[in-house]
Amino acid sequence: MTALVLASASTSRARVLSEAGVAFAVQPARVDEDAVKASGADARTVAAGLAEMKALRVSASRPGTLVLGADQVLVCEGKILSKAETFAEAAVQLKFLRGKSHTLISALALARDGAIVWRHIDEARLAMRDFSNVFLDSYLKAEGEALLGSVGCYRLEGPGAQLFESVEGDYFSILGLPLLPLLEILREQGVIPR
Amino acid sequence: MTALVLASASTSRARVLSEAGVAFAVQPARVDEDAVKASGADARTVAAGLAEMKALRVSASRPGTLVLGADQVLVCEGKILSKAETFAEAAVQLKFLRGKSHTLISALALARDGAIVWRHIDEARLAMRDFSNVFLDSYLKAEGEALLGSVGCYRLEGPGAQLFESVEGDYFSILGLPLLPLLEILREQGVIPR
Repeated sequence: MTALVLASASTSRARVLSEAGVAFAVQPARVDEDAVKASGADARTVAAGLAEMKALRVSASRPGTLVLGADQVLVCEGKILSKAETFAEAAVQLKFLRGKSHTLISALALARDGAIVWRHIDEARLAMRDFSNVFLDSYLKAEGEALLGSVGCYRLEGPGAQLFESVEGDYFSILGLPLLPLLEILREQGVIPR
Repeated sequence: MTALVLASASTSRARVLSEAGVAFAVQPARVDEDAVKASGADARTVAAGLAEMKALRVSASRPGTLVLGADQVLVCEGKILSKAETFAEAAVQLKFLRGKSHTLISALALARDGAIVWRHIDEARLAMRDFSNVFLDSYLKAEGEALLGSVGCYRLEGPGAQLFESVEGDYFSILGLPLLPLLEILREQGVIPR
């Protein structure tokens, strides 16, 4: 079997991959995400570019192995939102997203020996309901630190589900790792059995 | 807040509900599922009927509380599949489903004081890939007892994901609990805050 390295620090991505029964090592890539997001490029280009940069960065130090880079970008009303760094920022983001639809773009890239060998991009559309401020306060308390780790300040697999009116798109893409197309290429590349 | 009772023994449903931050008690309903499935009714009628029967059965002993009944039915080529009871049966089912599309029908019903107050039904469509017998053997070993607890012998949130080529439909419906419409009625009924 070919070895796989996940070039992401996301615990959510690592969990999806290990629950699916895929063996891998983790080596987060350091890239300047904010610089890329501030470049003025459109959201799909940003997500795809960051996924590729992460895969290539780690690939340089891992000859012969497959390296998976991933990125997720949230767009609402043409604006790209980054992860909140404080609770105050999370409350502002959630109030901005409340009562509106937004798009989550998830990009994956596989690199080997410094070259990209596969790319994938997927979008999901989520509509937040018009929740009360009382609900928002209890949600922020219930989630605690966890909400600072997620784009959009929610985990759909947790209490974040209570924020939503409707969700359209692949669940694994929403978690940041479009799983079925990834498993297909991992079979082709000999990482997992057919 | 109004109290909620889940009339289902499914650990997967209980997990989805508790991870979403909903408080509830569990009291599985005893109904003769096989008799209903053998009745000749179509799959949607079977799923909806079983969800209602479970909710009503438990509601009789829980005056004033909301009781949630749920059922999931798998249909492939017009045939309703029940949960496998042995590994041998699981292998036969998975070989039958291999390389084909099937439908998962998930029905919910809420009862209060012996009357149904809400119903919901949803369908998802899943295509299994043409996996090898070697893969099947390793899958059966990896999943062990867990696969006997799920309709179709797979957990999409586990190694079961490796069985699939494509999945269309709501992830929570596939787990047996269409979550977003349920949360909406639970807000209306005062079980969770708005």
